[in-house]
Amino acid sequence: MGLSTSFTELFGVEHPIALAPMGGSAGGALTAAVSRGGGLGLLGSGNGDRDWLARELPVLAAEGAQKPWGIGFQTWAIDADAIARALEHEPAAVMLSFGDPGPFAKRVRDAGPALIIQVTDLEEARRAVDLGADVIVAQGTEAGGHGARRGRSTLPFVPVVADLAAPVPVLAAGGIADGRGVAAALALGAAGALLGTRFQATAEALVDPATARAIVAGHGEDTERNRVLDIARGSRWPARYTARTLGHPFLDAWRGREDELAAAPQARDAYRDAVAGGRIPALPRWAGEGVDLIDDLPSAADLVGTLAAGAEEALTRAGRR
Amino acid sequence: MGLSTSFTELFGVEHPIALAPMGGSAGGALTAAVSRGGGLGLLGSGNGDRDWLARELPVLAAEGAQKPWGIGFQTWAIDADAIARALEHEPAAVMLSFGDPGPFAKRVRDAGPALIIQVTDLEEARRAVDLGADVIVAQGTEAGGHGARRGRSTLPFVPVVADLAAPVPVLAAGGIADGRGVAAALALGAAGALLGTRFQATAEALVDPATARAIVAGHGEDTERNRVLDIARGSRWPARYTARTLGHPFLDAWRGREDELAAAPQARDAYRDAVAGGRIPALPRWAGEGVDLIDDLPSAADLVGTLAAGAEEALTRAGRR
Repeated sequence: MGLSTSFTELFGVEHPIALAPMGGSAGGALTAAVSRGGGLGLLGSGNGDRDWLARELPVLAAEGAQKPWGIGFQTWAIDADAIARALEHEPAAVMLSFGDPGPFAKRVRDAGPALIIQVTDLEEARRAVDLGADVIVAQGTEAGGHGARRGRSTLPFVPVVADLAAPVPVLAAGGIADGRGVAAALALGAAGALLGTRFQATAEALVDPATARAIVAGHGEDTERNRVLDIARGSRWPARYTARTLGHPFLDAWRGREDELAAAPQARDAYRDAVAGGRIPALPRWAGEGVDLIDDLPSAADLVGTLAAGAEEALTRAGRR
Repeated sequence: MGLSTSFTELFGVEHPIALAPMGGSAGGALTAAVSRGGGLGLLGSGNGDRDWLARELPVLAAEGAQKPWGIGFQTWAIDADAIARALEHEPAAVMLSFGDPGPFAKRVRDAGPALIIQVTDLEEARRAVDLGADVIVAQGTEAGGHGARRGRSTLPFVPVVADLAAPVPVLAAGGIADGRGVAAALALGAAGALLGTRFQATAEALVDPATARAIVAGHGEDTERNRVLDIARGSRWPARYTARTLGHPFLDAWRGREDELAAAPQARDAYRDAVAGGRIPALPRWAGEGVDLIDDLPSAADLVGTLAAGAEEALTRAGRR
């Protein structure tokens, strides 16, 4: 009979499942697939790079089958122009993560799309409510990729944000990779779940095949939060964010010595040379603690339905032996 | 209509809720109250101290109303005699946490009680299955008090342990403090939830009133995992375990400098003097990330029913707008 929540009602989507707008890898094909599958696809535009959007937006338009979709930004990396360009394409939602959403919130809301704000602590959650967010994503430290250095865990964090934000719908994010996780999100009072790593391991994600296979093979205990790889690759990510990744030779070499690494240009040269020589992956392998639960590479469109069916089954079975 | 799981069936209890056997504070009155309320009370005997048990076991016998109960140990701190003394009292369960359960598992199982083993990673989970555990507790790093230095988060950890252990019942622990958390545990595939911090803030817990009030007032973001307080108080807890606590002056003074603190006997003297002078609490204020959800000091017997009713309501409501 399907799962119905304030999130599915707000967007008119079939399932309470959203795609994390992972910068670079949540491209047009993946966003379209998640929306076609009955979830809400969110394009991972990062800093709003024009060339990347010029390539991915036509793919999304061609494959999205007129379903609702949105676009996500790394808030610290954008300016008002990036928002303005996104709004031209009439997304159903604009999602802001990591950084102060204040300068952009009104612009988004006045233009019509739903404003989705991702938060990592209670102060950010209160601010998102004050700014009139239409949806709040409560991200736990289990999440793959970037997040707060000192994060909250998804299970105890989500119900507190749900109480604080009510009646604004909250999506749970971080560590959710199967139907049971989606069911847990709903049980905790969320109106749905936002998944990243699970969607990296799909046919439509913009990731190199070796990384997708590494996610399938990986275990949660292999993942850790660090800044080492951002420093080594000369990333512009601010120091207040770490990223959860799978293991990496540079991580073994520099773990716990981030300041030293930052002061060692020769290490950054060595990283660049290792990428060029194919000895390390071109990008860090961002992955969340839920990787244990990922053991296939399905189509993302099919996966949305599988997750929703699994969530329904988990809720039906829970406490009913 | 109530929640029924392999855990409630195994023990013949009404609700899929267990008391974390918190060393010292889960005494006879609290254990009895949880069992009377329809859960499984587990006495927190720590290292099996004879005097403590001689005081608490009669309270449990007097107040337990013949309901099933168990006894928990810190495995690293006990010997076979402690197990033997516990078995004389015919508990329904013996729970082993933190350390190698190998030397004690057969002794417990042969004597009749259910063997409950708490695990913090997948290697420990596999070992618990191999040792024939009747119940496995999957503890996430959100938990208050002691746990693995490099822990797993409850939400992504529980389903993996459930898959690995099936058909052995798994209890979720860490960050669960209300009915929604219990519901999430069941949705994740657990057969119930084990709660600690929530039961510290009850009329029956053996904690000083100021600590109970601090838990009610505390926020998850105020808690952190550390060894500072164990070192400062000269605790015998092995270095591979940290403990999640509320804030503390010694934590602010020594955070990140554990080796230095261990080599500073004058700091341990200062800690002892501060306790003696009433300037700091007699014990660290162990608390999990779920403290945000705790805002009252009910009777533990009533609380068990409230949690179960809340879990049922959360499951009924989830995805059914």
